[in-house]
Amino acid sequence: MREAASSNPILVHVFRGPRVESCHRGAIAISDAEGRLVLALGDVTRPIYPRSAVKALQAIPLVESGAADAFDLSAEELAVACASHSGDRVHLDAVASLLAKAGLDEGYLDCGAHWPLSEATMRALIVEGKRPRPIHNNCSGKHAGMLAAAVHLGFDPRGYEKPDHPLQVLIARILSETCGIALDPAHRGIDGCSLPTFALPLGALAQGFARLGTGVGLAPERARAGQRLMEACFAVPVLVAGVGRFDTIVLRGIAGAAFTKGGAEGVHCAALPQLGLGIALKVDDGAKRGAERALSEVLAALLPKGWAVLADELEGEVHNWRGLLVGRMAASEELQGALRDLAGRRDRAATG
Amino acid sequence: MREAASSNPILVHVFRGPRVESCHRGAIAISDAEGRLVLALGDVTRPIYPRSAVKALQAIPLVESGAADAFDLSAEELAVACASHSGDRVHLDAVASLLAKAGLDEGYLDCGAHWPLSEATMRALIVEGKRPRPIHNNCSGKHAGMLAAAVHLGFDPRGYEKPDHPLQVLIARILSETCGIALDPAHRGIDGCSLPTFALPLGALAQGFARLGTGVGLAPERARAGQRLMEACFAVPVLVAGVGRFDTIVLRGIAGAAFTKGGAEGVHCAALPQLGLGIALKVDDGAKRGAERALSEVLAALLPKGWAVLADELEGEVHNWRGLLVGRMAASEELQGALRDLAGRRDRAATG
Repeated sequence: MREAASSNPILVHVFRGPRVESCHRGAIAISDAEGRLVLALGDVTRPIYPRSAVKALQAIPLVESGAADAFDLSAEELAVACASHSGDRVHLDAVASLLAKAGLDEGYLDCGAHWPLSEATMRALIVEGKRPRPIHNNCSGKHAGMLAAAVHLGFDPRGYEKPDHPLQVLIARILSETCGIALDPAHRGIDGCSLPTFALPLGALAQGFARLGTGVGLAPERARAGQRLMEACFAVPVLVAGVGRFDTIVLRGIAGAAFTKGGAEGVHCAALPQLGLGIALKVDDGAKRGAERALSEVLAALLPKGWAVLADELEGEVHNWRGLLVGRMAASEELQGALRDLAGRRDRAATG
Repeated sequence: MREAASSNPILVHVFRGPRVESCHRGAIAISDAEGRLVLALGDVTRPIYPRSAVKALQAIPLVESGAADAFDLSAEELAVACASHSGDRVHLDAVASLLAKAGLDEGYLDCGAHWPLSEATMRALIVEGKRPRPIHNNCSGKHAGMLAAAVHLGFDPRGYEKPDHPLQVLIARILSETCGIALDPAHRGIDGCSLPTFALPLGALAQGFARLGTGVGLAPERARAGQRLMEACFAVPVLVAGVGRFDTIVLRGIAGAAFTKGGAEGVHCAALPQLGLGIALKVDDGAKRGAERALSEVLAALLPKGWAVLADELEGEVHNWRGLLVGRMAASEELQGALRDLAGRRDRAATG
């Protein structure tokens, strides 16, 4: 089933020397918790697969069910359940202890294996003559959190990743309720880590993240669960991604003001609790660099003071193999214009 | 200097489960040696950086100058001079021997270092506690070939990578003459390996590859140089890329019928000597997967018999970390339609 190709605007240009070499099109939704869109750039109604950007929502049963209390989970263990981690020692320890507290071990992880993003861990594995295991998969914390929730809820942990497992049915219901939209089984794919991923419109995802950030529109225990997961991520940002990576830099730099989480294929979501807003964007072609640059521009416009401390780390320069500065990434004029309009409207609303 | 954003068509859809997850826009030119475009899909007039797709053209001085004869270069050494290699033992040996024949060593390479694409070499380096060196850079063969040409031509090999070095001036002239278009210094960027890269329209690049493949429109010694380089690549295709990689698979599978070479940021060029055609394409967002899928579709349309033997290896399936089939890549209806039209016109011309 192929849908008509919508033509989303260019969000980001990639320059090499004097010229644009490549560009990234996409769509961005910014919503409040009631679903009022304060920005809709491109097609925000077409369902897109959110992939790992919604890991915090997928982790809600871990807290809401009482599992986090029953297993006395630490901030590290909760944060890694929301993470796309680098596979450093700190991540592997958190995943292993989360599994152990639930009475399980890494043999239960059904996420598949890949070389860890962390070069240090990869080198250590190679020196020891070992191959990567499922625990090194960037999604292993999410899987461990799901396994712990399943155990606490009395579900069979085997098969926890299948769409008809009661835990996945519960997670789909939470996604649907939080984002305020019915999930269509015809819009379901299989994620890189073998979990179901349901396509949702960016507008609904943005509303879901506004609700996650504020608790508005959520049942009290769900609001508290979301709050606790975000606070864990703010407390130990390195657990959520890893050294030098976008989400860790943002969570550490402007903790409390922005909870951001990227997913595969150019998806990025964010909750801005103090502004009462949620953000969801997808780059059409799936490029992470495009999504991170676009979200950087949005955050710089909405949180200019907080962003100032991060600008140097996330400035979008392109260097070559000898370290020469050969290019840069920059917001398109269309994205710049939309963000200027948004900032102007917010200024007028604040002073009006 | 930002140019107006042209809206190129979608070339490739990436499906996950039942739905399109991502897509790649771009432009494709197919030309004969006289510059007659038999296909122009998208904007084929805007200059784009060809990057590593033109390594065979950049290697022409190595043969045309007489260096290849003077240094008695093997097919392996000529092929690696045209390569974006994986850094396997066979590549490193060819680069080292090419440098040695010119009286140089790897200390002259100014391409910068990165971990080799070959996991075997990377593992070996790590086990030995070593870091990658410039010889592991996928461009080291091109640099070695340039160094050998510079030595033979009596140029100072130091600074061979700078735009005003006489070898780079010569290479720019060859690019300009082969592609039939003046090169504008305002359209010059710095490549990942620190060499100059001049932006050229896809139409001109396609003409250049038609000339490379046929020799038509080139001075006899240049036509012979191009032919010798392509024959070296056909003879040892693994030298041009590496095990399991697109160009090696194509060169090995339909040797003689298609010389293909990819470059960074979604560029791919090809010469089809028997058909007298050249192909140049760029995916707007820079994705290699999009460029390789689009070129696969073009080659399947133009060389259906040859392509049949490759279809299984290059079928565009998407698997996840557990090896599950979760999606596939497919030509857009616009690309399919353009290729049907092209095949129909060629059939009518053949029978008319």
